[in-house]
Amino acid sequence: MGRYLVISSDCHAGLRPERYRDYLDPKYRDVFDVALPIQIQETEAAAKKFLVADINAEWRKGREQPLSGAWDHDERVKVLDGDGIAGEVIFPDGITEMNMPPFGAGLSLPTENVDPELQWAGARAHNRWLVEFCQMAPERRAGVAITPVLWDTDTAVQEIHWAKKHGLAGILIPSRWGKLDAYHHPKYEPIWAACEELGMVVHLHSGSAPMEDYGDHQGMMGIYITEVVWWSVRPLWFLIWGGVFERHPGLKLAITESTAIWVPEALQLMDQRYSESHYSAKLGDFRSHLSLKPSEYFRRNVFLGASCMPRREVELRHEIGLANIMWGSDYPHPEGSWPYTRSQMVESFRGVPKDELAAMLGGTAVALYGFDTEKLAPLVARIGPEESAFHA
Amino acid sequence: MGRYLVISSDCHAGLRPERYRDYLDPKYRDVFDVALPIQIQETEAAAKKFLVADINAEWRKGREQPLSGAWDHDERVKVLDGDGIAGEVIFPDGITEMNMPPFGAGLSLPTENVDPELQWAGARAHNRWLVEFCQMAPERRAGVAITPVLWDTDTAVQEIHWAKKHGLAGILIPSRWGKLDAYHHPKYEPIWAACEELGMVVHLHSGSAPMEDYGDHQGMMGIYITEVVWWSVRPLWFLIWGGVFERHPGLKLAITESTAIWVPEALQLMDQRYSESHYSAKLGDFRSHLSLKPSEYFRRNVFLGASCMPRREVELRHEIGLANIMWGSDYPHPEGSWPYTRSQMVESFRGVPKDELAAMLGGTAVALYGFDTEKLAPLVARIGPEESAFHA
Repeated sequence: MGRYLVISSDCHAGLRPERYRDYLDPKYRDVFDVALPIQIQETEAAAKKFLVADINAEWRKGREQPLSGAWDHDERVKVLDGDGIAGEVIFPDGITEMNMPPFGAGLSLPTENVDPELQWAGARAHNRWLVEFCQMAPERRAGVAITPVLWDTDTAVQEIHWAKKHGLAGILIPSRWGKLDAYHHPKYEPIWAACEELGMVVHLHSGSAPMEDYGDHQGMMGIYITEVVWWSVRPLWFLIWGGVFERHPGLKLAITESTAIWVPEALQLMDQRYSESHYSAKLGDFRSHLSLKPSEYFRRNVFLGASCMPRREVELRHEIGLANIMWGSDYPHPEGSWPYTRSQMVESFRGVPKDELAAMLGGTAVALYGFDTEKLAPLVARIGPEESAFHA
Repeated sequence: MGRYLVISSDCHAGLRPERYRDYLDPKYRDVFDVALPIQIQETEAAAKKFLVADINAEWRKGREQPLSGAWDHDERVKVLDGDGIAGEVIFPDGITEMNMPPFGAGLSLPTENVDPELQWAGARAHNRWLVEFCQMAPERRAGVAITPVLWDTDTAVQEIHWAKKHGLAGILIPSRWGKLDAYHHPKYEPIWAACEELGMVVHLHSGSAPMEDYGDHQGMMGIYITEVVWWSVRPLWFLIWGGVFERHPGLKLAITESTAIWVPEALQLMDQRYSESHYSAKLGDFRSHLSLKPSEYFRRNVFLGASCMPRREVELRHEIGLANIMWGSDYPHPEGSWPYTRSQMVESFRGVPKDELAAMLGGTAVALYGFDTEKLAPLVARIGPEESAFHA
C-alpha cells in the first residue's frame, strides 16, 4: 500500500525563556538575568491583549504534553509521527506566547525597542540550540536560523555561513523593516549572494504587523487578522522589482503561513505593471533591469509554506502554482492542523491526482531543503498517510 | 435612440499653484508668497522622479487646451461633452504635477513636513474655488472638499458643514495617517456622524504611498505601482472592524481609482475572519460589536470609483458587486480614458445587459451624489453614448 512522504514546511520550536541562558554568549548573561523577568511580563501582557485567556486556557487543557514538543525531542516525535509527518522545517517561537528567544529575537524580529547587538545575541542563542535540536533527528529536521539582517550586513553574512556549516537549512529574515532599509536596497546584496551560493533558503513568516496603527480600540484584532498576511508578503515585490532574483537566479525564497490565495492576483497585477502600457510608460524605466516578468521570477525562485492549506486554495493550485506549494502543519501553534492533520489533509486534498498531491505534501519541500528520501523511506512506510485515504 | 447617462466618478480639477493665492485667507498670503517658489520647485523635482520627462512631454503635445480644462470651465465642458460624460465627481490635483493646492493640501494629504493649520488653509482655498467652479455647471458637478481630518476634529466637522452648505457633495480624507490615529479611533466619531447626517460621501483616492520605504533604488517605481492601491484601500478594514458602519448605517464611503479586482478576495477574507473558527476564536472578541458581516457593510456602505474599468473587472462585476461600481474617466490625468472614452467604454462594456450598464455608467453615482436626472436629460440626449454601440 502506497503512502505519502509528508514534510511540514511550517513548524516551530523553541526553549522556555529561562533556558536560553545557557546558549547565550557568556558576556550577555548578566543582561539576560535583568531582562528575563521583564520579557516574561511583557510576553504575558501581549498574550493577554492578543489571545482570549479563557479560550486559550481551555484549549491547552490536556495538551500540555504534546505542546512540550516545542523543545522536547521525544514528545515532538510522537506528535509528528501521529500526524504522519516525516520531515519538518523549523521556525522559532515554538509556543506562540512562551518560547520567544531573548532580546526580541523571536519570529517577528522587531526593529523598535531592541538593541541590534542583543537581538543578534538572542538569535545566536536560539540558532545554537536549534542546531543541537535538529541533530537529534537530522534526517527529519530542517532548521531555519534567525537572522536580523536589517542591521549590519557583515554580521548577517557570517551567521549565514555559520548556520550552513552547522547543518541549518535556511534563514528567517524580518518581514518588516521599520525605519531601516527595505529589501531592494543594494546593501543587502552580500546576503542574497551568500544564500544563493550556500543554498540557504530565505524565509518570510507571517505574524508581524504595525501594532502601533491598531492601538487598543475596538476592532484592532479584526484589522490585524485582515492585513497581517499582506505584511509578510510585502517584501516579495521589493525583491522582485529590486532585481534580486534577476541577479541571483539560484536564490530561493519561502513565504510561510501567509496563505496562497493572493498569488494569482498579485502576479497578474505585477505582470500587467511590467508590460508596456500608457499607464506605466509615464512612470519611468523600471523594467530595463529585469529580463523576466515578475511572475516568471516567482515561478522560479519563490515557494509558499502553505500551512493547513484549505480546500479552496487546493482547488486553485494551478493558478497559484502547483510547483510552488509546500503544505505545512504549523505545529505546535494552536491554529495548526495537529493533532488532526490526517483527517484535515484528506478534507483539503481529497481527489487531487497522486503526483500533484505528492508534490504539495512533500516532494517540493524535499527538493528545496534537500531531505534524504532514502533515509526517510522506512519512516514513511510506517507513519505516512495512506494514498487510499485521498482517493477513495 | 436610447443613450446612457454617464457620470464620471473620478475627475480632477485645480488651479495653477499661483492662482490659489486669491482664495487663501489673507493672513496666510505672506507665507504663501514665500512657499510658492519652493512648492513649484519641489513639485517639479517630484515629477522628474516620478514621471519620465520625455514621455510626459510627448504626451502633452497638442493636449495643452484640453488639459487646461483642469481649471477652465469652457474647455472642460468641451472635453466632457466629447467623451459623452454628463456629470462628474471632482477631486483635487487637476493636472497630476501642476495643480496642487498650497501647503500640502493636495490629493495625498501628507502628514509629514506639513503644518496642520497651513494644510487646512490650503484645503479651504481649494474648497472655496471648487464651490465657484461647481456653480458654473451645478447640475453636472459634484465637488469633493479637501479635508485633512487627521488633525483637529472640530475643524474638520466645521469644514464638512461649510462644504455641505456650499453645495459640495462629499469630502476627501487622507488614505494614510502616518503617525496620527487610524480610522477606527473613537476621536473620529463626530466626523462620521456629520457626514452621515448631512449625506456627505467620504472619499479615499489612490496615490499616496510610503515613498520613504522606496528610496531611490532600482525598482522603486515597480514597487510603488504594485502596492499603491493597497494603501488607498487599507482604511476600509479599519472602518469596518472599527464598527464605523455599524454605528453609522447611512454613512457612504467611495474608494476611488483603486481598482475593483481586490474586492471579492478581501470580502471573503474578512467574512472568513469574522466567522467563528478555531483560528480566530483564540484572537479575542472582535465581533460582538458588529451585527453584520464585513461584506454586508461593504454592500451597504461602500462604493468603488472604478476609473477606466477594464474588461476583466467588468466580467467580474457580480463578484465585485454590481451595485457598488461607478465608472470614472480620471480626466484630466494622463492615465485616464479621455479623450477616447467612447471607444474605451465600448471595449470594456460591450454586451453587458442594459440595466447593469446603466447602473455602472451613471445610475449608482446619480443615487449616491443626488444628480438631478431631469435636469441632465437634455444634455444626455445630445452627448450620451448611444446604447446601440454596446449591444451591436
